[in-house]
Amino acid sequence: MGVPKRGFSDAEFAQRTESAQRLMKQYNIDLLWFSTEPEMRYFSGFQSQFWQSPTRPWFLLIPANGKPVAVIPAIGQSAFARTWLDDIRCWPSPQPTDEGLSLLLQSMKELCPAAGRIGTLMGRETHVRMPLADLDQLRSALGSRGLVDASDIVRTLRSIKSAAEIEKIRYCCDVASGVFEELPNWVSCGDSEQAIFRRFKVAMLQAGVDDVSYLVGGAASGGYDDIISPARELATKTGDVLILDTGSVFDGYFCDFDRNYAFGHVSSDVASTHELLWQATEAGFAAARPGVSAGHVYQAMHKVLQAGGGDVGNVGRMGHGLGIQLTESPSIAAFDDTPLKAGMVLTLEPGLAYAPHKMLVHEENIILHSDGAEYLSRRAPQAMPII
Amino acid sequence: MGVPKRGFSDAEFAQRTESAQRLMKQYNIDLLWFSTEPEMRYFSGFQSQFWQSPTRPWFLLIPANGKPVAVIPAIGQSAFARTWLDDIRCWPSPQPTDEGLSLLLQSMKELCPAAGRIGTLMGRETHVRMPLADLDQLRSALGSRGLVDASDIVRTLRSIKSAAEIEKIRYCCDVASGVFEELPNWVSCGDSEQAIFRRFKVAMLQAGVDDVSYLVGGAASGGYDDIISPARELATKTGDVLILDTGSVFDGYFCDFDRNYAFGHVSSDVASTHELLWQATEAGFAAARPGVSAGHVYQAMHKVLQAGGGDVGNVGRMGHGLGIQLTESPSIAAFDDTPLKAGMVLTLEPGLAYAPHKMLVHEENIILHSDGAEYLSRRAPQAMPII
Repeated sequence: MGVPKRGFSDAEFAQRTESAQRLMKQYNIDLLWFSTEPEMRYFSGFQSQFWQSPTRPWFLLIPANGKPVAVIPAIGQSAFARTWLDDIRCWPSPQPTDEGLSLLLQSMKELCPAAGRIGTLMGRETHVRMPLADLDQLRSALGSRGLVDASDIVRTLRSIKSAAEIEKIRYCCDVASGVFEELPNWVSCGDSEQAIFRRFKVAMLQAGVDDVSYLVGGAASGGYDDIISPARELATKTGDVLILDTGSVFDGYFCDFDRNYAFGHVSSDVASTHELLWQATEAGFAAARPGVSAGHVYQAMHKVLQAGGGDVGNVGRMGHGLGIQLTESPSIAAFDDTPLKAGMVLTLEPGLAYAPHKMLVHEENIILHSDGAEYLSRRAPQAMPII
Repeated sequence: MGVPKRGFSDAEFAQRTESAQRLMKQYNIDLLWFSTEPEMRYFSGFQSQFWQSPTRPWFLLIPANGKPVAVIPAIGQSAFARTWLDDIRCWPSPQPTDEGLSLLLQSMKELCPAAGRIGTLMGRETHVRMPLADLDQLRSALGSRGLVDASDIVRTLRSIKSAAEIEKIRYCCDVASGVFEELPNWVSCGDSEQAIFRRFKVAMLQAGVDDVSYLVGGAASGGYDDIISPARELATKTGDVLILDTGSVFDGYFCDFDRNYAFGHVSSDVASTHELLWQATEAGFAAARPGVSAGHVYQAMHKVLQAGGGDVGNVGRMGHGLGIQLTESPSIAAFDDTPLKAGMVLTLEPGLAYAPHKMLVHEENIILHSDGAEYLSRRAPQAMPII
């Protein structure tokens, strides 16, 4: 596929903001306040790896009407001037004695009526990105204006992807699918995990992603017991199963899926477990459609695994939303009753521990349309490829 | 230089923990509590890109005596079992109704006496990584045990790098220096920023870093006005100044420096500004030694820039600490009176806005020894290289 256009139209940012403002009315919220990168980017378009520096907080306010207001360190002034925003308020930073606090407070008081409600992210899978001492000071200075949880608003909005968002994720998935398919051509038994991972990153960059932000996995005899660690120096050997799980990024949007490879041969345990995971994914794919809950998709996969006698292991869920972040709401988990909707991008990620310290995980990315799911990743081979 | 050994000895983690415990006594703190990646990694050795998923909080407790205690989601159990820790407490996650909260609270009560003080990161350049609603609930449930700020303890410890830490940073700096030096051989006028940045990432990976986590900059006629944005599709042209600023990582440790290149020719404004920044760096390097303050190094550089008639722009500081994070304490800034010590790794980063929207920035990485500074990055050429 062709490389998607970068960025979003001003109209799309305006539409996101107006959707938030409609929900604010429903939730009786007068002002939204954000301190984290995904929300700043979703509503402003500001994209920067500078968030890796913990020194400066960044804030965005969404009033009941009109465009969002940025309250940011001066180093971001030029970058923000290129966004669709008009009202960009800066403080000289770093300035630890007043790291944006007075400017933020003044802006909040201006944009939220006395005794009004300020919505921010307080719920699951969120945090506030500013020093706790400053946050405490802010809350006490807000007086009659109270903080309330607006996680639902953000989850509702961000979980439904626009056509432009979907194209970016589709592109990442397409690039990663191609690199995964070619991998057996440039990996040999005996290569170290680190060498394989390094070559994978290079291949992904050369194939068109901006960054391979997330790459975890490893190789071990007949399966692995850890799917969140970086590659080791260890050389691969016959009988190993190699997994690479990548969250690669194009224009700030992630794909997130994995592939498994066997060195030399596939044991019968590994083959049958892999087949079970492949079938569980089929069941999840068939179950995933607007109207059912995220938990329903989990149950569909769980049923296949249980019928095969599997232990679903310790990952706690079998998939999740995907977009600006590697993992987003909803969770494909028994507890999650979020109703699925067209426009949601999800991972299906069944995993099985088939013996002590022997786990296999399988993952695909899908997009929900009104009539059902479509794979964004090219389906993994039903039989594990042998290197 | 050779590739450094990965990881750290158990003895080094024990020494870090004992140093923290000595400071806890001084500060009258009974238990340290961390929720953020750098601290978890510094004291446990747990390294994972999985932190990019916001779903699960991770906690580490350091009691007055003995090893740290991990309170983590079950998905991390295998990875933590390979660390030097013995006491690893897991909850099944995700589990939004109790996302580790009761296990954390119970562990805190067990490890901190009633009416004791629990130190955590509340000060500048920190945040607490857990949902605010959960944090509020935790604080209220802690009752007589109060949270106090332990930022000073962490800053004091982490700012002095061990020999093993320095080797990792030195290696990153060495790799990046080599790639920057070779860059004119594979960049041509007319290449797009994105193409150049992509090739840079590939070159860095092939030269031996694990990840090019941070790469910002761009090219513009006679200087730039934004040093925190990603590359654009724009083609470079004669008269442009190109800057690449990279934070690349080996075994979890960053280098952080930039290089400037001119396309075709260097204007006299650019040449004189670049010379001024180069001389300011010399002055900063000469001033940086144990005993003086971070602010003293700032003043030394500022003096050179002011003598040259420069506007120091909006970055707010001219360097910072460096290590597990792209930017760490101290700040090379007027306000920062942190006394410099042997073992500190710092960036020297003078910048100048020499005309409206025309800025140049220069950066080197140094390590402080008892008798003065040593460059970790190979010194930038005094005259800007021409492509």
